[in-house]
Parts: sequence; C-alpha cells; structure tokens
Amino acid sequence: MLSKNTVKFIKSLHQKKFRNQEEKFFVEGEKSVLEVLNADFIVELLVATESFVEKNSKLIERSNAQLILATQNQLESLGQYQSNDSALAVVLMKSNRPFDFPKDGFVIGLDDVRDPGNLGTIIRIADWYGIKNLIFSPQTADFYNPKVIQASMGSFTRVNFFYAELDEVFHQWNVPIYGAFLDGKNVHEMKHVSRGVILMGNESNGISTTLERVVTHKVTIPGFGQAESLNVAIATAILCDNFKRLSIE
Amino acid sequence: MLSKNTVKFIKSLHQKKFRNQEEKFFVEGEKSVLEVLNADFIVELLVATESFVEKNSKLIERSNAQLILATQNQLESLGQYQSNDSALAVVLMKSNRPFDFPKDGFVIGLDDVRDPGNLGTIIRIADWYGIKNLIFSPQTADFYNPKVIQASMGSFTRVNFFYAELDEVFHQWNVPIYGAFLDGKNVHEMKHVSRGVILMGNESNGISTTLERVVTHKVTIPGFGQAESLNVAIATAILCDNFKRLSIE
Repeated sequence: MLSKNTVKFIKSLHQKKFRNQEEKFFVEGEKSVLEVLNADFIVELLVATESFVEKNSKLIERSNAQLILATQNQLESLGQYQSNDSALAVVLMKSNRPFDFPKDGFVIGLDDVRDPGNLGTIIRIADWYGIKNLIFSPQTADFYNPKVIQASMGSFTRVNFFYAELDEVFHQWNVPIYGAFLDGKNVHEMKHVSRGVILMGNESNGISTTLERVVTHKVTIPGFGQAESLNVAIATAILCDNFKRLSIE
Repeated sequence: MLSKNTVKFIKSLHQKKFRNQEEKFFVEGEKSVLEVLNADFIVELLVATESFVEKNSKLIERSNAQLILATQNQLESLGQYQSNDSALAVVLMKSNRPFDFPKDGFVIGLDDVRDPGNLGTIIRIADWYGIKNLIFSPQTADFYNPKVIQASMGSFTRVNFFYAELDEVFHQWNVPIYGAFLDGKNVHEMKHVSRGVILMGNESNGISTTLERVVTHKVTIPGFGQAESLNVAIATAILCDNFKRLSIE
C-alpha cells in the first residue's frame, strides 16, 4: 500500500534540492518506466497498477525494485503529468562522471540551456542521431528534472552526460568546437567533418562571450525568410542532421 | 478604462467557438503585438500600458485601433501568459482563402497536427526557411489559438494558410507530395528538388492512410541511434532544411 510517507517522499523529488540530497529521481508513464527498467539504472521503488505489473512481471522481478501497487488516481496525483496512469519508478541518479572526448564522432555541448523541455528534446535528438555524449554548463537545466525525463521520451537512458565549466573541458579535449551563431559559416556550404563538439547557447543570449573564445568554428543555419531565430532544440536538430550528413559524405 | 464587458469579451476569445463566432483573435506580449501592428492585419482594439503607448505612439495611431490603457496586473490576467506585461491586441481573423500552388518552392502540409505548440513552432520554422504557404487538414490545431500565436514568435503575420481536405487539394495541384514516413527514402541521399508539398502527419499516428495514397515520394530522416521517432516540429525543421539545401545545390 502507498503510505503517506512514500507519497511525501516522491513529491519531494519534484524539487532539485531533494533529488540531489537523496541522489534519486523519478520516472513516470508506461514507456519511460519500461525503458528505465530495461536500462542499466538501479530502480529502487516501483509504484504501479495491477495491470502494469501483470504485463511486465518478469522485468519487474529482475529489477529487484520494491513494488507498491496503486490505483490510476493515486498515480496521477503523484507525478508531474496527469496522464500517467500505469507506473512511476524511483531511480538512483548516476554520478557526475566526466568522460574523455570519444575516438570519433560528436559531443553536444549546452551553454546554459535553461528550459527543461528544450533539454529533454535535445536528449531525444542526440539519441536519434546516435550522439551518445553530452556536456552541460553548470547553469543548464537539471537532467533529472521530471520535465526533462518526460520530454526525452526514454532517450535519457541511452546517453552519457556531465556538468562542468565548459571552457576548461574544451581546453583539455583540444578538438574542433562548432558553436551555433547567427553570423557564422553557412552549414550547407561546409565540407566533410568527422569530429568535434556541437555547442549550443542559452535560449535568450546564445553562447556566452567567455565560451565564444574557445569556439574554433562559428556555424550558422541559413535563413531564407524573416524569422529572427529558431528555438534551440530545433537548431540543435538541424545542426546534428547536417553534421551527420557531412561526416558520411 | 478596461470595462468588465471588455475583459469578458477578451477572455471569451480563449475559446475557438467564440473566436470563430466573432471572427477575432488576440495577440499578446510586446514582440507579437508590434509584429501584428506592423503587418497587414486589422487591429480592432489595443489594451496596453502607458509605457508601451509612449514608446509606440505613431504606430498605434496609424493602426486606428481603439486604445485602452491598462496596468501590468490587468494585462497579466487577461491573456494566456502571465508574463505579458505590456500589450494585448484584438485582431480581425483573415478568411480561409484557398491559394493555388505557387510557381516554385515549397508548401508545408499538416495532416492533423493537434498540438498548438507544435503548430506555432512549425509556422516559425516555415518563416525561417521562407516558406510562405501552409495548408492544414480540418483537424489540425486552430491557427488563431493563443498558444499557436505565442509559439510562432510573430511569424504568424508572415504566412498564408488555409484549412481543407488535403487529398482533394493535392489532386488539383498535381505537384510532388513529399510525405514524412519512417520507411521512405533517406533525405540525405536525395538529389535536387525544387517544388512540392512537404507533408507532415499527426503526432501519434503520422500521415493517414487516405493521404498516404496521394503521397508521390515517401521521405525519411535517417536515424543513427535508438530513439523511435522525432517530434513533428523537429522533423519539419529537418526536412525544410534539407529541401532548401537541395533546391539550391
């Protein structure tokens, strides 16, 4: 049975402060919960309806998660989204473990992307393009924010990431840094590229002046109309698409 | 002064039923209101703060709109977004006027894209790529929904659109229909294209089977990872970017 204390605990995980204190976060909705049960995360607690448990009994057993049965109504009031009517998992965070730049391919860097919906969408895009590694400035939205998890549509289970001062890491990596600007080289006119960081800036201010200094190539998505800008998740998708195309050509 | 009746009238415009009855919609926030005042829309009523009026007095005079002064608090409670603290305009809808397929270039077609945020984002993308014409199936979100207007970031003033049964219109137009599918031709491997409809489907179900029959070319955004799909606005952006590139090459 779902106790008051468990409800209180899960609700506290809506806040970053408590997530960091407990080193836990939650995942909700059938698709995302199944993804996290199938991934290499440690699921501590699973709150689910009987029908979810029946359908996925083997997977749940294998996870060793504590199981609490709940009704649809209870689930809907626990999480972020009213439409969650099947399961919610409390999961252990992974630690903030820096990685080296991979042998080839791309890493996505985010300089203060603040909106959780944008971050989640960018994680999904990274996963679509097979870009497994992301690096975030300290002020970027929290990876474990429920809105990020939700918007990533399960892709949060398939990427590596860490938070760090980006300029320091980029100095160590010593690879091309492709920064998205409005006055860079037209990405449609670029030739073969195989390796580097695709760096995106803050929703309002773009890439900070500190980071601009470590950008080795300014790149721009060509505009043909009158819109002043594109949303940062949209721009990330277009750059990833071009870079993947250029890395194969 | 802002009367109770005016408040009630503006609030009624949150609903599609009343927008259609009155043939009016509202636009809020400094950027969007300035865009609509500068465009070829008829602004019937402008509710604005003194400071907005002072900064834009000539533009407001030229518009012939009825002007009502209001406080920031009043404005915040009138519209959809709490952060609106400068102006709100009540604007006459344009009629649903079908157009012929333009001499060259692309038209974006949407088959039941239901989410207003997606529709607004797609309008902004169309404007970025200079695609002036869009056509929507009857079940696509309402162009004049305040969330659409907001997400379009002013681009709603620079596009033409109409709602219609898409298969009937496509038969008349007799141009290539490029439909987004998961099993089509890789858009990175396509050659020069210059003209046609870029057709996107519903968020959950994609392009309907009825419309699939009038698609002349199935196209696909190549995936390199494990995400199952991309959001429809993201996919629209990537296809527009590729088609614009291919139309110039």
